[in-house]
Amino acid sequence: MTGELPPHRIVRLEQDAVVLLDQRRLPEEELELRCATAAELAEAIRVLAVRGAPAIGVAAAYGLALAAERGDDVDEALEILAASRPTAVNLRWALEAMRPEPTRERAEAIHADEVERCRRMGANARELFPGGARVLTHCNAGGLATGGYGSAVGAIRAAAEAGLVEHVWVDETRPLLQGSRLTAWELDQLGIPHSVIVDGAAASFMGRGEVDLVVTGADRIAANGDVANKIGTYSLAVLAAHHDLPLVVVAPTTTLDPDASTGAAIPIEERDGAEVTARFPARNPAFDVTPAALVAAIVTERGVHRAPYAASLPREVAAAR
Amino acid sequence: MTGELPPHRIVRLEQDAVVLLDQRRLPEEELELRCATAAELAEAIRVLAVRGAPAIGVAAAYGLALAAERGDDVDEALEILAASRPTAVNLRWALEAMRPEPTRERAEAIHADEVERCRRMGANARELFPGGARVLTHCNAGGLATGGYGSAVGAIRAAAEAGLVEHVWVDETRPLLQGSRLTAWELDQLGIPHSVIVDGAAASFMGRGEVDLVVTGADRIAANGDVANKIGTYSLAVLAAHHDLPLVVVAPTTTLDPDASTGAAIPIEERDGAEVTARFPARNPAFDVTPAALVAAIVTERGVHRAPYAASLPREVAAAR
Repeated sequence: MTGELPPHRIVRLEQDAVVLLDQRRLPEEELELRCATAAELAEAIRVLAVRGAPAIGVAAAYGLALAAERGDDVDEALEILAASRPTAVNLRWALEAMRPEPTRERAEAIHADEVERCRRMGANARELFPGGARVLTHCNAGGLATGGYGSAVGAIRAAAEAGLVEHVWVDETRPLLQGSRLTAWELDQLGIPHSVIVDGAAASFMGRGEVDLVVTGADRIAANGDVANKIGTYSLAVLAAHHDLPLVVVAPTTTLDPDASTGAAIPIEERDGAEVTARFPARNPAFDVTPAALVAAIVTERGVHRAPYAASLPREVAAAR
Repeated sequence: MTGELPPHRIVRLEQDAVVLLDQRRLPEEELELRCATAAELAEAIRVLAVRGAPAIGVAAAYGLALAAERGDDVDEALEILAASRPTAVNLRWALEAMRPEPTRERAEAIHADEVERCRRMGANARELFPGGARVLTHCNAGGLATGGYGSAVGAIRAAAEAGLVEHVWVDETRPLLQGSRLTAWELDQLGIPHSVIVDGAAASFMGRGEVDLVVTGADRIAANGDVANKIGTYSLAVLAAHHDLPLVVVAPTTTLDPDASTGAAIPIEERDGAEVTARFPARNPAFDVTPAALVAAIVTERGVHRAPYAASLPREVAAAR
């Protein structure tokens, strides 16, 4: 491990704008996008200039602070931001945390907390990595997705710092290639050895005995442990179970949604089919739901959960309040 | 069903060249590529201007006839063509069938036979389709891949002609998108309703109960029924088994390789990682092997095979000789 990826490079609040590292342009260009209003930021979230459930929450918190400083209607700004993506629960969580006092200081505290949470998740997840681990990950649950250290990639990073990681298999993650564009870029910056593969090849490398565990993030986790995450995660969960490999989900407590009793209660965003192909009919659900039975462990900043999740997850949410 | 896709549009022998519909340019452009020598044709096969195990065999047969007419060294031309792709067994089969008499007439007979075989496979596969079938297919085992009617797509076509197909889910099939570029183009030409999905979404649609069966082609089938096919097929096989859905493989007898006792004996082509991403390290196996235990049926022009395959497949090869 050699590199770094400081949180302020990913998202920060300047005097008159929320400034984002535009994740649509990576890895080709490291361009910053300035959003001067809640509406501009909501659009940036919608078009995925910033993405990843925790990072969206942090950006929205900065957006609300900015709206308050500008003298905009804070309730209206909050609703504009909350409506930008439907699946991530952290977005709503961060906005509600800002509502009583939408200040710059509070948003910065949420951001700092998010990064600190990731470091704790990484420390907690370490015990799940065997020595010489060959880890497969999907999408980007990295620093870019969390505004800092990363959840799934944070766990890989912590394990790599402990000398436990031999190789990372990076699912490219169609249609938007968050794996081959963002996770590979982060691993490259961090100096962690990796290979990108097409999503369809994961089973093949599992079958050859070249994968030890699968680690992903989550966009929302139901009270029973069902996990909503990037489309393709459920596929990996079934494949991991078939090959007797653990699927480890790493996500902050803010990803837990006690109001969703099971995954069936989680809204799944269906995006424009043109992200898949503009020429022929296409279906493009952005997320899928992995049943708790296929999840070996859920790691948060507070500890490692194992099945049955229905008791321990709601307890953690209650404790965090 | 409305359209057509005549075999001579896909590959034909003119006076001085093998003429291919360039599959790299589809669906944007319907461009023809002229190959005047075996070396040019081998290069066209290598870069996938023509792809699909049976179509490669037909093209190579035309190439050998052309070499003979030009007065080139036929044995040398045969080896150049045979070396162009390592996994498909039909390529070697077609070349050996041409060796005793490398004439234009023989190549045309091989082509006509291939198309006729596809029609018989389609008729044989029909019994495996329930009414209102929602079929998922991977890669392109269509007319483009076979020089005519198609194997897996031929089966779908025959079932659609019989009024049995409600919808086709088309895996886009990264890295080269044979699904979203070629299969969707064929289904569009044929007027069969379809939606393209990313490879990672197949499990999700299975989990929602929106898939009734999975139908694929094959590049090579071992004597025990293990199936080598486009990367991602093994993944679908595991997912189909998990959801109690049949995986049906449709391929001509020429795809059976009695010399490979199991899939472990089939060479798997590893292509340039730059097909996945040119910026970061990547691994790019073009095929995977699905164990026979996950294959519900293998349909050839001679009938429908079911497990155990080890007895019936070699018998079919012997009968075909």
